[in-house]
Amino acid sequence: MRVKIDIFDSTLRDGAQAEGISFSVEDKLKIVAALDNLGVTYIEAGNPGSNPKDMEFFGRMRDVSLRNAKLVAFGSTRRRDITVDQDKNVLALLSAETPVVAIFGKSWDFHVTEIIRTTLEENLRMIGETVAFFKQRGKEVIYDAEHFFDGYKNNPEYALRTLQAAFDAGADCLVLCDTNGGCFPAEVSEIVRVVTDKFKTKIGIHTHNDCGLAVANSILAVEAGATHVQGTYLGFGERCGNANLSTIIPNLQLKKGYWCIPEDQMKNLTYTARKIAEIANISLNKREPYVGNSAFAHKGGMHIDGVTKATSSFEHIDPSLVGNKRRFLMSEVAGRKTIVEKIKEIIPQIDKDSPEAEKIIQRIKEMEHEGYQFEGAESTFELIVRKQLGKYKPFFELENFKLVTEQPKLTGSSAAALIKVNVDGKSEITAAEGNGPVHALDRALRKVLEVFYPELSRVHLTDFKVRVIDSNRATAAKVRVLIESTDGESVWTTVGVSTDIIEASWIALVDSIEYKLLKELEKKMKVYL
Amino acid sequence: MRVKIDIFDSTLRDGAQAEGISFSVEDKLKIVAALDNLGVTYIEAGNPGSNPKDMEFFGRMRDVSLRNAKLVAFGSTRRRDITVDQDKNVLALLSAETPVVAIFGKSWDFHVTEIIRTTLEENLRMIGETVAFFKQRGKEVIYDAEHFFDGYKNNPEYALRTLQAAFDAGADCLVLCDTNGGCFPAEVSEIVRVVTDKFKTKIGIHTHNDCGLAVANSILAVEAGATHVQGTYLGFGERCGNANLSTIIPNLQLKKGYWCIPEDQMKNLTYTARKIAEIANISLNKREPYVGNSAFAHKGGMHIDGVTKATSSFEHIDPSLVGNKRRFLMSEVAGRKTIVEKIKEIIPQIDKDSPEAEKIIQRIKEMEHEGYQFEGAESTFELIVRKQLGKYKPFFELENFKLVTEQPKLTGSSAAALIKVNVDGKSEITAAEGNGPVHALDRALRKVLEVFYPELSRVHLTDFKVRVIDSNRATAAKVRVLIESTDGESVWTTVGVSTDIIEASWIALVDSIEYKLLKELEKKMKVYL
Repeated sequence: MRVKIDIFDSTLRDGAQAEGISFSVEDKLKIVAALDNLGVTYIEAGNPGSNPKDMEFFGRMRDVSLRNAKLVAFGSTRRRDITVDQDKNVLALLSAETPVVAIFGKSWDFHVTEIIRTTLEENLRMIGETVAFFKQRGKEVIYDAEHFFDGYKNNPEYALRTLQAAFDAGADCLVLCDTNGGCFPAEVSEIVRVVTDKFKTKIGIHTHNDCGLAVANSILAVEAGATHVQGTYLGFGERCGNANLSTIIPNLQLKKGYWCIPEDQMKNLTYTARKIAEIANISLNKREPYVGNSAFAHKGGMHIDGVTKATSSFEHIDPSLVGNKRRFLMSEVAGRKTIVEKIKEIIPQIDKDSPEAEKIIQRIKEMEHEGYQFEGAESTFELIVRKQLGKYKPFFELENFKLVTEQPKLTGSSAAALIKVNVDGKSEITAAEGNGPVHALDRALRKVLEVFYPELSRVHLTDFKVRVIDSNRATAAKVRVLIESTDGESVWTTVGVSTDIIEASWIALVDSIEYKLLKELEKKMKVYL
Repeated sequence: MRVKIDIFDSTLRDGAQAEGISFSVEDKLKIVAALDNLGVTYIEAGNPGSNPKDMEFFGRMRDVSLRNAKLVAFGSTRRRDITVDQDKNVLALLSAETPVVAIFGKSWDFHVTEIIRTTLEENLRMIGETVAFFKQRGKEVIYDAEHFFDGYKNNPEYALRTLQAAFDAGADCLVLCDTNGGCFPAEVSEIVRVVTDKFKTKIGIHTHNDCGLAVANSILAVEAGATHVQGTYLGFGERCGNANLSTIIPNLQLKKGYWCIPEDQMKNLTYTARKIAEIANISLNKREPYVGNSAFAHKGGMHIDGVTKATSSFEHIDPSLVGNKRRFLMSEVAGRKTIVEKIKEIIPQIDKDSPEAEKIIQRIKEMEHEGYQFEGAESTFELIVRKQLGKYKPFFELENFKLVTEQPKLTGSSAAALIKVNVDGKSEITAAEGNGPVHALDRALRKVLEVFYPELSRVHLTDFKVRVIDSNRATAAKVRVLIESTDGESVWTTVGVSTDIIEASWIALVDSIEYKLLKELEKKMKVYL
């Protein structure tokens, strides 16, 4: 029997406290979907009391049903010297209408007297009454004992009394937090064992990475009896960040025999990491354990030689177990299998050893080398497959475009585009203005093509993301532009790469239009079949 | 009496195995100087046998005398079935003429029989004879037992015999390597204790980060009796990298009472990290423990409130101990208090209730409402404060610019910029091309201003980030551009927001230039005070 460990992801709450991270409501909905699909147990998604924007998110979530995870809203115990139902933040938390709430309270006597400035006894009442308030309203309550380890080291008796207050009020899980991230493995291990011996309920661990020890401290807490692990999927959070769940899940499940997420989702760990990084608009650290792009990349000659003879010689696990891949940095020999799988999704009948498959694989590898990435750009991938099979005729040809931007602005619009295209031998020219060059270009392109393809009038862009790939080269670096489009029914994503942001946007815009026209054509053909 | 831990830095050897890292001889000389100044015990700087470029470096090092560190060259035991003095790699290692050599050999029986394909007995002879060869020539010999932990787990008796062979031949230190990075804290702790009990000599630890546990495993090894720690200063190396010494040194010295580097160098830990990152041409991870730019950055309102009352409430150490700084980030929900704290960093004498302070706060809030975000853009923030106080005169005025982009490209460059500026009544006009419009604009702006301000020739951009703020509006949405610039000594960041990516980039570029010129002016004024 494998022991089940509850994985509690706080990317959308503690993760949003990280420098450089800011989520829109749309971003949050997408990350919830990715984490739910992966199968974490809890998704802590906001702090309704302190962040009014989060209320809109929780409102939207009422229409979303999750397959695996339970949604959690986060808040504090009531403030001192008032009743629970007088506390605005508590009421905001209740109105988020989540099945689970996480309530944090103070464990460290110094924080009680010096930071929130109340008595040790009043703090115990704040904990107990707030937990009881939510239990009476049918919530599952996770109690976060903030600064538990520092508190315990300073005054163990009082720290344990704060847990007792939450326990007595009916908390479903007591989470021990190393809020400042300053604790060491041996002490975490020892203190967790004291708590798991004393309280016969679910015990959780919440660590920060200020000493580079967040993952180790979480693992040692589990080995000392904790069965609930909090962190953020990519490790970002206040200061140096939280425990990195994309490391902890495979550490526990592949190496230590615990059960964290459904077994068939283990191979989605890498995809989920890249997806969340993309939505958060950060570059995923390539040296991230398990899920980083370099995690199984071999550069040293002896290492490559060893891995070729026996992969376990320089790899601690098979990279495919977490959906990652081996890479030899000197000789690019990787990824074939994954690419074949993706091609088969588009052309199920293709033979993986055929010259056609080989040609597609070569082209994909070339493009990846140029900086393309097809996760989150499936439509561009599909177009490439069709183009390489020769089963593709472009719907239009660009004759030329010219874009002019100037300051001071001469009109209300800061950019103008002139464009000329050719469709089946017929030329058409037009112009459009926009707020910036990409906007002008997008408008001009659709305007000139609607003459030939009126169905494009329903298409509009819903997302536009820019990522600098090799940021050391600054403005001469390559950029990757991801575009999401919709016609009101379906949504598709395309990608372009160039050192020129206009060219990268152009490539992605063209793919978006071509993909829509291809799907329209397929629909029409089906009618005749 | 504090226990001395030898810090062995392999940035220039194992670090050079990282994806994306490549050092010139000049780079290596600079990194040696930085590490020697910091006071590490050993600097492992190359592998003369496998990398002929390293021979030039070791040649250059003969004229360099180090103040603190000992220089180490790295190589393998002799190959099977030859004598030591017939082995070309061994002879190359000898000819590096370093006082110390690090010799690695096989501890894992599987590697002996399957990878180097020899007998277990011949491997023991290879270890013993190679160590003896260097000892006879007066070298200090550090023996790296590759895959020691995996070997021990598989065949403890044989793994210990390999150490015995090195010990009997006179090795000065036996280093236990977790080469594949797959080991866990509890097993590292237990196995190191077996070795420290058995061998009465110096024991070292060398870990990799494939499970996110390299720092923890190193700390636990020290607690189990190891007194020599190998790693790379910023943690980069094969795959997920090596143990990060910029984390381990303060963990051991500030938290555990060991002695790693001279006490007065502790405050150089952050500077050294930024210096090595600059030479290695990588962006230092802002969430790096102790030395990252976000390591003591507070964003959550409750955290900022707590730190203002008592710094230890949300900081595990005083940031100045490692030469880092506390920062209060301006989140989108930043309160008035945070803004006041930031203003005080720039104008310490300002009264927080004065009309001046009020004016600045109003302007900041307006800009936040427009989509600005000042975390990670302190230089723009400083310029706003000065502008609102009326203590600011722009260094130049834009008369106009024109940018043209077209497809198909007419020349190799896809964009051209024409720019005209005015400095103290004098106009100047120029033009430049670039890979894309922002690149062209950046080049043109610096080119035209260098006529007036030659000090700008040292400035270049090191990062360029684009974030779409309200992505539902797609190409008509607002974008936020963050720019990081450097003159080789300091680093500053600026931000611009607009619906036009060109305008947003322009605003950030102008702030970057203005900020640099402001700091130059302040420097000159100090000379006269």
